[in-house]
Amino acid sequence: MKIAIHGLGRMGMQIARKLAESGEHEVFAHNRSQGPIDEAASYGAKPFPVGNDIPAAFGEDRAVVWVMLPAEITGQMVMDWTELLPQGSIIVNGANYDFRETKKLNEAVKAKGMHMVDIGVSGGVWGYDNGFPLMCGSDDEAAYEALKPVLETLISSGGMYNRFGTSGAGHYVKMIHNAIEYGMMQSLGEGFRMLHDGPYPGMDLAAAADLWQHHSVITSWLTELSHDALAENPELEGISGYVAESGEARWTLDYAKECGIDLPAIQAAFDVRVRSQQGETNFATKVVAAQRNKFGGHNLNGEGKA
Amino acid sequence: MKIAIHGLGRMGMQIARKLAESGEHEVFAHNRSQGPIDEAASYGAKPFPVGNDIPAAFGEDRAVVWVMLPAEITGQMVMDWTELLPQGSIIVNGANYDFRETKKLNEAVKAKGMHMVDIGVSGGVWGYDNGFPLMCGSDDEAAYEALKPVLETLISSGGMYNRFGTSGAGHYVKMIHNAIEYGMMQSLGEGFRMLHDGPYPGMDLAAAADLWQHHSVITSWLTELSHDALAENPELEGISGYVAESGEARWTLDYAKECGIDLPAIQAAFDVRVRSQQGETNFATKVVAAQRNKFGGHNLNGEGKA
Repeated sequence: MKIAIHGLGRMGMQIARKLAESGEHEVFAHNRSQGPIDEAASYGAKPFPVGNDIPAAFGEDRAVVWVMLPAEITGQMVMDWTELLPQGSIIVNGANYDFRETKKLNEAVKAKGMHMVDIGVSGGVWGYDNGFPLMCGSDDEAAYEALKPVLETLISSGGMYNRFGTSGAGHYVKMIHNAIEYGMMQSLGEGFRMLHDGPYPGMDLAAAADLWQHHSVITSWLTELSHDALAENPELEGISGYVAESGEARWTLDYAKECGIDLPAIQAAFDVRVRSQQGETNFATKVVAAQRNKFGGHNLNGEGKA
Repeated sequence: MKIAIHGLGRMGMQIARKLAESGEHEVFAHNRSQGPIDEAASYGAKPFPVGNDIPAAFGEDRAVVWVMLPAEITGQMVMDWTELLPQGSIIVNGANYDFRETKKLNEAVKAKGMHMVDIGVSGGVWGYDNGFPLMCGSDDEAAYEALKPVLETLISSGGMYNRFGTSGAGHYVKMIHNAIEYGMMQSLGEGFRMLHDGPYPGMDLAAAADLWQHHSVITSWLTELSHDALAENPELEGISGYVAESGEARWTLDYAKECGIDLPAIQAAFDVRVRSQQGETNFATKVVAAQRNKFGGHNLNGEGKA
């Protein structure tokens, strides 16, 4: 099928590449700057430096635009597309997005006679290789169904997609996923700190992580990534321990408070990240920063989106 | 090689079985009650209802006794063996044990002219199938080396063993492992609670867990076990949400305090378990109880060791 990808950052580029290289889709690559468009073209996508040219490119086919941009500008960009596309078009909102805002944006898109499908995308920079886990929400079942050819391609090699409910449900499941991620990462960070600063100086932390990956109860991808980081750099030298937070845990905690639900482990993990940004760093926050770098390619010592 | 297993509970029985069935070892099965001895005998172990008969059974071979009992009685049992066994014998302490107590017990064993090797065993009730992750510590490298034939058998199918340092190091790495486990379990519990009690009633939690197992960042064995529990029993009916704590997180937090180290996520997870025992239960603690049941065969609503 035909699909436009708007936003060729780390995640958008992987999506465009996986779709274009499959040979099963006609992929229109759109981005503010030209460089990523050229890169996408090298994978077989069609370059569209001018977004206004995209609606005509769909011809008789239903227009589908996947917006893969930071949350801060996604709302405006989605609404801009509603001005350009014909009635009945589908806009995918692939950002990490507060599900409450998703529902509002969805109403605005519906008022323009179009459909928005929210898709939370996990897997970091590894989705191209491993297949993407895609968490979907949509008021319109048919719009979701219409996306299945591209979803099938994106999950190939081990991902999965599912629709969890009406508008916002995909972003909600992704938001909760990321909140859990915060808690798991912090738990691992604290544990490795106790090995590092514990009573057995010089303990081989990578060896412990490796052993834990051999059918211990905490076997996990995050333990594997911790192993990789510690094997390469046992003291995590050059990592400041500053850990960015990118909204999802904050939204989760905010919404949980609205519901009167306590989330003490997730709250603790979130608070540690906030304090790390105020300079309170330690070996645990270094491990968390190293994990983020491993799964998401995030800058080890600075800002970045999870 | 010849080895006696003392304590044929959930973990000890699996160890005795895996060793006996391999056909590579002569396994002496000892237990307070007769039933488990008969079961071990059905796997090919030799029944030893009377512990005093065991030293002679080693003949000219070095005596090796693996004590696999609850922490509360392990110290006394280890010292009892030092009264029966010849000089140079090896006693394995396989309990979940406070590493500070391990070091004290080790000194007492050394004073009797014998060696203690501490081995933390993870993997719950699945080690027989998957191979055990075995975290070892010992002052005496040769005593650890002497155990390798049985360690090799116990890791077969996917486990791993390693010596992390002097006496107590194995129990220390296992203690930290379990403390991380508490934090990871609680994080998942909180997340599933937010899905269950969230804005999309009737959301399919098992489907979310299944999708997260497809290369999301929180891919983990605990997520898989959560999936299995939620697929079988979506509302976790009949699970009270009481969650036992078995010492390791408490010891970790106690030792961390000694060191002046904060472990906020692990502390939060521990506190939730303590409060669950005072009746403060919710869907998150039910998920944690269900996970424990899945990996360890623990009683869903009552006491039990992790």
